Amino acid sequence: MELQISNRMSGLQPSAIREILKVTGQPNMISFAAGNPASETFPISELHGLAGEILENKGEMALQYGVTEGYEPLREQTKKRLSQKYGMVQPSDELMILSGGQQGIDLLSKCLLNEGDVVLCEAYSFIGALNTFRSYGARLVGIPLEEDGMNLDVLEDILQHEPNVKLIYTIPTFQNPMGITMSEQRRKKLYELAVQYDVMIVEDSPYFELRYSGEAVPAIKTWDRTGHVIYLGSYSKIISPGLRVGFLCAQADLVAKLVVAKQCADVHNPLLTQMLVSHYLERYDLDEHIAFCCNIYREKRNRMLEKMELLFPKEVSFTRPEGGLFLWCNLPETVSGMEFCKQATESGVACVPGGTFDPNGNPDCPCFRVNFSLPTLEQIDRGVSILAECMKKWISN
Amino acid sequence: MELQISNRMSGLQPSAIREILKVTGQPNMISFAAGNPASETFPISELHGLAGEILENKGEMALQYGVTEGYEPLREQTKKRLSQKYGMVQPSDELMILSGGQQGIDLLSKCLLNEGDVVLCEAYSFIGALNTFRSYGARLVGIPLEEDGMNLDVLEDILQHEPNVKLIYTIPTFQNPMGITMSEQRRKKLYELAVQYDVMIVEDSPYFELRYSGEAVPAIKTWDRTGHVIYLGSYSKIISPGLRVGFLCAQADLVAKLVVAKQCADVHNPLLTQMLVSHYLERYDLDEHIAFCCNIYREKRNRMLEKMELLFPKEVSFTRPEGGLFLWCNLPETVSGMEFCKQATESGVACVPGGTFDPNGNPDCPCFRVNFSLPTLEQIDRGVSILAECMKKWISN
Repeated sequence: MELQISNRMSGLQPSAIREILKVTGQPNMISFAAGNPASETFPISELHGLAGEILENKGEMALQYGVTEGYEPLREQTKKRLSQKYGMVQPSDELMILSGGQQGIDLLSKCLLNEGDVVLCEAYSFIGALNTFRSYGARLVGIPLEEDGMNLDVLEDILQHEPNVKLIYTIPTFQNPMGITMSEQRRKKLYELAVQYDVMIVEDSPYFELRYSGEAVPAIKTWDRTGHVIYLGSYSKIISPGLRVGFLCAQADLVAKLVVAKQCADVHNPLLTQMLVSHYLERYDLDEHIAFCCNIYREKRNRMLEKMELLFPKEVSFTRPEGGLFLWCNLPETVSGMEFCKQATESGVACVPGGTFDPNGNPDCPCFRVNFSLPTLEQIDRGVSILAECMKKWISN
Repeated sequence: MELQISNRMSGLQPSAIREILKVTGQPNMISFAAGNPASETFPISELHGLAGEILENKGEMALQYGVTEGYEPLREQTKKRLSQKYGMVQPSDELMILSGGQQGIDLLSKCLLNEGDVVLCEAYSFIGALNTFRSYGARLVGIPLEEDGMNLDVLEDILQHEPNVKLIYTIPTFQNPMGITMSEQRRKKLYELAVQYDVMIVEDSPYFELRYSGEAVPAIKTWDRTGHVIYLGSYSKIISPGLRVGFLCAQADLVAKLVVAKQCADVHNPLLTQMLVSHYLERYDLDEHIAFCCNIYREKRNRMLEKMELLFPKEVSFTRPEGGLFLWCNLPETVSGMEFCKQATESGVACVPGGTFDPNGNPDCPCFRVNFSLPTLEQIDRGVSILAECMKKWISN
């Protein structure tokens, strides 16, 4: 039979990153294209021991149906950590467990967006979020990202003239794809604008605790006295992405609605994976483990920045992230990021063209994203050299 | 701030079953309200051993990101089982892993339904599916369920007169909530009607392999030469629901679209839970385990039917399911199922009022659902006695 796909989904294509990642399976291909944490950061032996204990002592519970909001001890532990360590949880807030932060974006879109509503997002922004907003018929408007965050003059101008803005979507800390962190001053101002124009902020912060240098900046959620900020977090980058355990903190009546939506979506996260994270938090020192992860990533980031500074032509600029997994390269205006990445892939290095992350979907933006968490130091050395060689061809042309 | 919930979600309330399940936590409450498999059927020690092996030998893979379609060996094993044992997989079909069968309903609704589209479903039907269809703005039309399945004359009449029918949703085998199985003849006829009117069938069959008596009936998917049938299955009721591993088999181009939707929804199922199921299938004999589960459930079903036959007043009828987890009780027309269930709960037995499963949402339908998989034999004895006592009060009134 001929398929009739719904209006909301008919235009949506598989993520371009998926296509790129297919070539990264080829032998000798160096991948700067993924968004994966390094496997050497996973606490495998600890989780191995805990899985045994859980299935031995609480096997029936771990394998039975659970509640949609999430495994209660894990909700409490997460709330306590966000509250005591970061001052994020407001008295009227509630917290729910998600199947990765991605599920939060899906449930929020379903519960808050009508077709044609506008979502303001950073230009450039996380493709997984952009596609989800699109899949609910939202219209994306990109706000230019500067060295210390979104250009708030542009943002306010749009808030003044655009009647249907429902959400401001931001990854304020070590942004994906650009590696930029919003300054404390801009965070405060962004929150004030959200209150003034009565628009919700989705603060998506999966990299929040992966800082390798510089001063910590508070989460926007910290200032939220009005229920305008929805905080999305995840254990994916600090324990394991494969366990798919994320969380959301927002005003309680919104969380209640999101729980109804999650019940329709998947009933609940697996108990075993939630219990693994919960027992890990109880038994081990997560801060110590995060420091261990940061040491690994700091070395990789430093090596990549050193090599780029040494080898890249002066016409190419790049961001210097203080944390996270990504940095961003700007090519000369005349160079198509898509064409450049194709050539780089042919030369043995996969990167993701900037256009992938463009809210307007322009494939030729003269920029590309580089991941430094997954490759080895040796791959970073070779990969940056190859990229530098490719650049010289484009620039001398 | 004042919440503005999207049109599609604003009317949706938490499942009534959740509210009922809250009281089942009370001491001495006998619950016939749940939909849970019995914990004594879970292969805990087998999964305990396998979890250790997986985290010891394939820990990095189990904890890293995976592909959206699902863990490749599990896809292959599931496809092979459906194909070789049941003849369900057509050459143009593909199979994907889901976070429980529930996620299939969510992704299908998102990809196939526009607002106002009609979904034909059984009256009565699974509340989790009905709410999901509603959450995408679908209009539900209930088709009366008879002893051997949907009334196909009513169905055809609606197909003739209703232009916007997009899906026929059926649980043909050991139906939830009514315990009814559609006959082979009706299955064939239903498939022919779907082809004739070019409407897709969602065949939701989580209880398919839990047969305790009678002759096996082939899945509707078995006859599908045209791509009109989407088969939803699950390991929830035959291995463990807490692992949240379901699957979907349908024409490949639909699956490709559903994979895009799943990428937006949760990226992928956890690897660990998928690998647990895959290794279980490799190492152990699932058919043998299903026979073990069926022995437990057969005894419970038999006990419940015996007790009901012995104790229920003649004015109350009930279905005699050949498998699955549920049976259905019909009270005299004048009795509200909602009021009856309230009183039963006060007397110490929780059941789910029939109205919960009504596509039209009439709370007073004179019927209720009974689960026999979770209670012990002793609880079945006591619970049925209490229900019988309650009935006598209503009927003598």
